[in-house]
Amino acid sequence: MNFGEIFLWEMLGTAALILLGVGVVANVVLKQTLGSGGGWLLINFGWGFAVFVGASIANPSGAHINPAVTLGLAAADKAEWADVPAYLLGQLVGAFIGAVLAWLTYKLQFDTHDEPANTRGIFATGPTVPNYAWNTVTEVIATFALVFWILLSPAAGPGDDGVPTFGNSALGYAAVAFVVVGIGGSLGGPTGYAINPARDLGPRIAYALLPIKGKGSPDWNYSWVPIVGPVVGGVLAGLVYLLLPAAS
Amino acid sequence: MNFGEIFLWEMLGTAALILLGVGVVANVVLKQTLGSGGGWLLINFGWGFAVFVGASIANPSGAHINPAVTLGLAAADKAEWADVPAYLLGQLVGAFIGAVLAWLTYKLQFDTHDEPANTRGIFATGPTVPNYAWNTVTEVIATFALVFWILLSPAAGPGDDGVPTFGNSALGYAAVAFVVVGIGGSLGGPTGYAINPARDLGPRIAYALLPIKGKGSPDWNYSWVPIVGPVVGGVLAGLVYLLLPAAS
Amino acid sequence: MNFGEIFLWEMLGTAALILLGVGVVANVVLKQTLGSGGGWLLINFGWGFAVFVGASIANPSGAHINPAVTLGLAAADKAEWADVPAYLLGQLVGAFIGAVLAWLTYKLQFDTHDEPANTRGIFATGPTVPNYAWNTVTEVIATFALVFWILLSPAAGPGDDGVPTFGNSALGYAAVAFVVVGIGGSLGGPTGYAINPARDLGPRIAYALLPIKGKGSPDWNYSWVPIVGPVVGGVLAGLVYLLLPAAS
Amino acid sequence: MNFGEIFLWEMLGTAALILLGVGVVANVVLKQTLGSGGGWLLINFGWGFAVFVGASIANPSGAHINPAVTLGLAAADKAEWADVPAYLLGQLVGAFIGAVLAWLTYKLQFDTHDEPANTRGIFATGPTVPNYAWNTVTEVIATFALVFWILLSPAAGPGDDGVPTFGNSALGYAAVAFVVVGIGGSLGGPTGYAINPARDLGPRIAYALLPIKGKGSPDWNYSWVPIVGPVVGGVLAGLVYLLLPAAS
Repeated sequence: MNFGEIFLWEMLGTAALILLGVGVVANVVLKQTLGSGGGWLLINFGWGFAVFVGASIANPSGAHINPAVTLGLAAADKAEWADVPAYLLGQLVGAFIGAVLAWLTYKLQFDTHDEPANTRGIFATGPTVPNYAWNTVTEVIATFALVFWILLSPAAGPGDDGVPTFGNSALGYAAVAFVVVGIGGSLGGPTGYAINPARDLGPRIAYALLPIKGKGSPDWNYSWVPIVGPVVGGVLAGLVYLLLPAAS
Repeated sequence: MNFGEIFLWEMLGTAALILLGVGVVANVVLKQTLGSGGGWLLINFGWGFAVFVGASIANPSGAHINPAVTLGLAAADKAEWADVPAYLLGQLVGAFIGAVLAWLTYKLQFDTHDEPANTRGIFATGPTVPNYAWNTVTEVIATFALVFWILLSPAAGPGDDGVPTFGNSALGYAAVAFVVVGIGGSLGGPTGYAINPARDLGPRIAYALLPIKGKGSPDWNYSWVPIVGPVVGGVLAGLVYLLLPAAS
Repeated sequence: MNFGEIFLWEMLGTAALILLGVGVVANVVLKQTLGSGGGWLLINFGWGFAVFVGASIANPSGAHINPAVTLGLAAADKAEWADVPAYLLGQLVGAFIGAVLAWLTYKLQFDTHDEPANTRGIFATGPTVPNYAWNTVTEVIATFALVFWILLSPAAGPGDDGVPTFGNSALGYAAVAFVVVGIGGSLGGPTGYAINPARDLGPRIAYALLPIKGKGSPDWNYSWVPIVGPVVGGVLAGLVYLLLPAAS
Repeated sequence: MNFGEIFLWEMLGTAALILLGVGVVANVVLKQTLGSGGGWLLINFGWGFAVFVGASIANPSGAHINPAVTLGLAAADKAEWADVPAYLLGQLVGAFIGAVLAWLTYKLQFDTHDEPANTRGIFATGPTVPNYAWNTVTEVIATFALVFWILLSPAAGPGDDGVPTFGNSALGYAAVAFVVVGIGGSLGGPTGYAINPARDLGPRIAYALLPIKGKGSPDWNYSWVPIVGPVVGGVLAGLVYLLLPAAS
């Protein structure tokens, strides 16, 4: 698969992921919505099914839709390093587009929200207790769990054309969706589970650029944590995978 | 498959969809029910499993149960334009029947509801912040996501007889059910996610005709939004699909 | 399969169904539990997964675990009328045993419950607005939806030995579990969705016989509604199924 | 499969199980988290998807990740007694590691929790109404349901190499995850559903050893209940399974 095709499918899949993921947080956080105050489980299922939709759409390129997955697969010798730039670029551009679409979907609700300064949390993750070193540890552990599962699950073997994929079927994508629901419920409490650098950076850039009414700071100081933590966690999972007996 | 068969299966499937979908909203909104005040996630799962039941029943005709799906598939050259009238008629009649059955199921609860004027929301969708242009944008985006997923998901290929279907299996119908749960949670906040013209128009007609105690207006002014938005979104998804490399 | 085998597997499966189903209601209704006040969606998922467990266990006999399913399949010529007594007896005995096991599981919580008179609802269904004719209509519609889905879903074809079953696989049982979650959320609001005569009668008998502290009346006056409604709904679904073109 | 391989895979799978399982309770119980007060259904889904992740990872060794499963399978002649020590040791070590990782994930939240004395419940189970004999009965019944389902479900047959497994596929692990969600919702109310001696003992040891701020007692007096109850329930399920006609 060439650069353009990888870029296209990853962009489309990540855009869908972020449209639905940022969308569910908007639905819960904003006031003039039907899901306002809907709770953490609604957010967890929202992001999980967002992964399901996004991964299905990015099926032709192996459904990474996450730089930590791409880098973890490359570290485990399951993706070509030469393809990594196409994946990452597609994911970042798609994440930005998805965030813009989510904002358009909830435009009226942003305009009528009476606490506009707290809207950053709809787009980007942030810690409940700020301590960048520990926050990074949390993101490392959560992303390690995700990528380690992807590498070991029977549902996520390489596809016919050698591109790593989730078994090339609806079942594999449902499996990863369940895992993301679970990681969100279990490990998302301290930092909002970025577990995906594009998921955080793309919408954060969108938040910085969009004319959102009364918006606050995009908090660039924190922005490296949801990049470094997931990258370290994903690559670490790939390296540990190489040490396991079944991988030799 | 002839006109009568398409009409029959789409009518039965859409009736089941609306019976369960209007039913879950009735359960949450009405006071004298066991699910009263049950929240948005209950409504999302209710509509999702309603799609699962309805799509399974409409399996012989390809399980459209939604004019936006039928038109999107036709725009993508995956359904015959000549069959479209049979699909749409079956869907609209089924939606009306399903709404009547839901009302019969909750007849005693409608009779004892102490705020009868807000019962329209059980049958038809409506905006939390009225602005028909933006409300239409929201419905376009949400329906685009649904139909685009249907066109691209490995779970929703054409069946043996060439009729587009969700892989002709329980798994495909579970997949679309999960997607509808996700779209509801993520994009349903502003307008209640019609994403299906029959889902909105059929029950709205039923609300206008049924002798519901103390009922309010069916709000015909808004009624074109959940028709135009989903139709535009579905057809747009079909046209974009045709531009993608894998579709050529 | 002979009388004894049918009886055995239906008894085991229905006992598991009722253990988990009555269990989840006990968890939500009783005070000294970890799930106290957990809401309708918890109850819906609890009964849905109870069906999943019970149907898996009753796999050898076709996983009816519900007289309305047995009678509906017989009416649709998909089960032998001669086998019906073995099914029904196993289901009723199993339901009684499951209710006793659920009571043992929550024995300490029943003993320390401070409103003992409202414990009947843990075992047997009841209407939020009593009107036996309309309550019966609700049960007819909800059970019709269940059995009609079973008869038409691609996930629920007859198994290798001709015994009707849910595709003889985990996927089919997951499918029916989702349908039961959906019917509970959508149509269970008025009467608590018996949709299964054994599910109501077995635990009601257990409630009448067990030494539950400060218990109230088993309400025998209402007890025919959750028998007649589901039987009529199930048989009606079987008869309508026979009229459909695909069934000829 | 040799001792070391069984130990390795069971350790990795159980570590993932406990990381996600203890994690979701931490998310709900601690104050400075995004899921604080998220409710019983969130905990049930968290543990269910924790089983999904852990079982997928322990796929090579048959995905026991629970001494009650190992012993129940051995009692039913579906696992070698000679392999039991490797399974149990891997499970206990993995459970300890998982609990440490969960604590690291929520380190800042433990440090800022304002009721530190009630943190034991995040790691180990405990009764809402203490009565060790009845608490044991509850754990016996809940574990019996789990292991009996594993032995009888079509989704959980032995794998290609004779090691018992959940159909060796994503679907089988999803099935057991649903069953654990169901058992938690239905039978977890009185004692917090250990249903797994390693799940309770490993984190309890971790709670005793870790420098958790202001922690309380690990309650060793109760600690035998979540060991004895699950072991008796699992073995009993294996023995009853041998009596069934299909097992002969």
